[in-house]
Amino acid sequence: MTRPKILVTNDDSVDAPGIRKLISIMRKLGDVIVVAPDKPQSGMGHAITVASPLRLKKICIEENYEEYSCNGTPVDCVKLAEKAIIKGKPDLIVSGINHGSNASVNVVYSGTIAAALEGCIEGVNSIGFSLDDYSWSADFSHVDEYIEKICKEVLQKGLPEYTCLNVNLPVNKGSQINGIKICRQARARWDEAFDARKDPHNQDYYWLTGVFYSDDIAEDTDQWALKNNYIAIVPLHFDLTAHHNLKTISSYDWNI
Amino acid sequence: MTRPKILVTNDDSVDAPGIRKLISIMRKLGDVIVVAPDKPQSGMGHAITVASPLRLKKICIEENYEEYSCNGTPVDCVKLAEKAIIKGKPDLIVSGINHGSNASVNVVYSGTIAAALEGCIEGVNSIGFSLDDYSWSADFSHVDEYIEKICKEVLQKGLPEYTCLNVNLPVNKGSQINGIKICRQARARWDEAFDARKDPHNQDYYWLTGVFYSDDIAEDTDQWALKNNYIAIVPLHFDLTAHHNLKTISSYDWNI
Repeated sequence: MTRPKILVTNDDSVDAPGIRKLISIMRKLGDVIVVAPDKPQSGMGHAITVASPLRLKKICIEENYEEYSCNGTPVDCVKLAEKAIIKGKPDLIVSGINHGSNASVNVVYSGTIAAALEGCIEGVNSIGFSLDDYSWSADFSHVDEYIEKICKEVLQKGLPEYTCLNVNLPVNKGSQINGIKICRQARARWDEAFDARKDPHNQDYYWLTGVFYSDDIAEDTDQWALKNNYIAIVPLHFDLTAHHNLKTISSYDWNI
Repeated sequence: MTRPKILVTNDDSVDAPGIRKLISIMRKLGDVIVVAPDKPQSGMGHAITVASPLRLKKICIEENYEEYSCNGTPVDCVKLAEKAIIKGKPDLIVSGINHGSNASVNVVYSGTIAAALEGCIEGVNSIGFSLDDYSWSADFSHVDEYIEKICKEVLQKGLPEYTCLNVNLPVNKGSQINGIKICRQARARWDEAFDARKDPHNQDYYWLTGVFYSDDIAEDTDQWALKNNYIAIVPLHFDLTAHHNLKTISSYDWNI
C-alpha cells in the first residue's frame, strides 16, 4: 500500500507547539510535507498575497518528510505547497493544531480554517484542528488518538464534495474526553473594544481587544460540545449564499 | 426625518476611484463616515490585525461628512469606525465599489465582502459592491441609479437577520443594464500558477498568478447574471456549516 501524502500547515507559525504535535501524529500515517508560515498569521482569515513575492525556506528534507517555512499566509502555504513543491494534490491537508478555539464565528477570522477551506475549494480532503486554549504552552497530551482516528477515517472514506472538517478539541480537563460530536457552527460574536493609547510622539494608536459572546448554546453546536468535554466536528463549505433568504430578498422591489 | 448614518469602506484603498464613486452616491442618501484602508488590501479576506497597533488618519471633516484612512484591513476599518469614531452602529455599511468581480468563490478571498460580512455579524445592514472590471480606470458611469436604488430599498426594508448582500455590477457594455437578479454564488475556483523567479541575490521567489475556472453557469448564479448584463445580488451569511452534509458526516465511525 502506498502511504498517503499529507500536507501540514497552520497559522501560528512553523515553530508553534501545536503544529509540531500535528506533524508527529501525521508522520505515523503517511509521507508528510510541511509548508507553514514563518511568523504568526493568526486572524489572517482567507488572506492571500497578491502584491508581494512569496518565498519558501527549506528547513528539513528526510526520507518521507519535507519541511518548509513560507513568508505568506496559511492559504498561500497551501497553494504554494501544491504548485511549487508537491506539483499535484496531496491526499490530505491538515491545518493546526491551532492554539485557541476556532468554534463558532471564529471560522471566519481563522487562518487555520482558511487553509482547510482552501484545500476543499481545490477538491482535497482537508481538516482544521484547534485546541480550546490560546496559550503557547497549551497541553496537547490528550488528543493524539482522536486526531489519528479522525484522519484515518477521512483518509479511508473521503469527505463529501466541497466539504472540509473544522475540529475543535477541548482543553485537558484531566478526565477522558467524552467523545466526538458532529455539530453546527454556533452563533456568536466578538464584542470588540479598542485600547486607545498615545505613542512617544503623541500620536494616537489602537489595540484591538474583545470579548466573545455566545447566546447560542444549543446542544447541537460546537460551543456546547467543547464546553461539555466533547470534540466538536463541524463540516464546513464555502458557499456563503444565504439560501434560506433568497425568497425574501427576491420579494423586495428591485425595479428601476 | 433623520438622515441615515452610512459607513463606507473598501479594500482597494481610500483613494480608489471605486470608493470615491460610492461616497458620492452615499452623500445623497445620508450622513457619511468613510473609514478605508490607506493602502490596497485586496485579497485580505476576513483578516484582522491582532499583533500590531492600528492608526487612523483624519482626511476630511465637514458637516454630515467625515473621512479617515486606516493602516489596517477592511474588517479592522469596520470595527474601528464603530468603536472609535461612530461609537455605535451606523444604519448602513457599504463596501466598494471594488475594482473587479466578487462573484462566485471570490467572496472567500475578498476584503470588500469581508467588510460587509463583518457588518452583518454585528447586526448592521451591509452591502458589498463590485464592478466586473479590475482596471483602476474602470468605467463606473452606468451604475449610480442602481446602487442608489439598492441602498434605498435596504434602508427602507432592512435585511433578514445575519444576512448581507453581495452586489456585482456588470461592465459598461454601452447598452442599458438588463436589471437586477437575485442569485446564488456560482461554484468556481482559481487555478493558480506561481511565476518562479530569481532575485538579484540568486534567491528564489514566487508571484501568485491564476486563471479563473467556472463550470457552473446555471441561470440562477451570479456568474450567469454578470455575463448577461444583469446586476447580481447574492444574499450572504456567515454560517459556514455544510448543513446538507451533517448526516453523512455523522454516519462515519467516530468511536475510539
